[in-house]
Amino acid sequence: MPKLWDETIDAHRNAVRDAALDATAVLVGERGLAALTMSRIAERAGMGRATLYKYFPDLQAVLTAWHERQVNDHLAQLAAAADPAEPVATRLRSVLHTYAMIQFHSAAHRAGDLAVLLHSGPHVDDAVRRLRDFLRDLIDEGVQAEHVRTDAGPDELADFCLHALTAAGSAGSAAGVDRLVTLTLSALQPD
Amino acid sequence: MPKLWDETIDAHRNAVRDAALDATAVLVGERGLAALTMSRIAERAGMGRATLYKYFPDLQAVLTAWHERQVNDHLAQLAAAADPAEPVATRLRSVLHTYAMIQFHSAAHRAGDLAVLLHSGPHVDDAVRRLRDFLRDLIDEGVQAEHVRTDAGPDELADFCLHALTAAGSAGSAAGVDRLVTLTLSALQPD
Repeated sequence: MPKLWDETIDAHRNAVRDAALDATAVLVGERGLAALTMSRIAERAGMGRATLYKYFPDLQAVLTAWHERQVNDHLAQLAAAADPAEPVATRLRSVLHTYAMIQFHSAAHRAGDLAVLLHSGPHVDDAVRRLRDFLRDLIDEGVQAEHVRTDAGPDELADFCLHALTAAGSAGSAAGVDRLVTLTLSALQPD
Repeated sequence: MPKLWDETIDAHRNAVRDAALDATAVLVGERGLAALTMSRIAERAGMGRATLYKYFPDLQAVLTAWHERQVNDHLAQLAAAADPAEPVATRLRSVLHTYAMIQFHSAAHRAGDLAVLLHSGPHVDDAVRRLRDFLRDLIDEGVQAEHVRTDAGPDELADFCLHALTAAGSAGSAAGVDRLVTLTLSALQPD
């Protein structure tokens, strides 16, 4: 089959997948996770149930794919926040701030039973690992530039940052998120 | 009714409750949450199902009570870690370290769907709030002694610590937990 045809098929598959995940996001936002069904997702996405089932075997698969897409989007946002023209200290602040703002804005979605259903599955674990690796590499660069302490490893520091910044989910304001980022960064400084 | 009689009744009630929660802990440890039923809890606790249902209307109520008891136990451990004879900086390190070790040891229990089922309900929220208040008051004391920064409030700093220390759940060793506590404490220092 010609390459162009393959690409057309791929693009179509991605479009259907994205439509299903977009519909999921809207439905969860409107009525919560408990009211989510495969039929409602299909209806909202404007496709038949049979088509939806061709892409996702069950609701858990939809939720996992949705969360995986979210984590990938976040990763892209973090990568965009790290302007290569800037010194590493600036990039680190910018990346941590972007991550904290994502937590701040998504806190409402993570309430209740949603967290458990979403935070599972090898795909999601893989996406989270890439997120952590991205931050670890940036921290490692900070170590080389002597901007970051060395009595804990870059892996541990990345884990520390990601956990500390989840506190942004209960921050009262964007100013509170800024203070949280400052706190987190000050923990990374060499003595 | 004489006071002594009331106290006897209360002691009996607490003993039955505790037996049910102890049985729950053992069963979850042995076979996981998915295999937990009211019948199995009653059987393991050596009581009839009818008795168990007099104390807890359903499984969710058992789990909520169990988690509430755990958080209260943790709170007692933290309070015990803060030796009033020690200066505030020592107490703060000791309390944060105790909390991090609790996270380190309980990481295995928090895997999968357990977290969602447990982290809900006003009782649990209340116990978590008392935990945070305890830490906030200690941090506030640190502020008075000029050991703690003032550009973020004690509430924000307590939230920051509790979130950062959940990273202990994925620490590789007790030494890793120590480093995490050092990182967290260094974020609290005044400039």
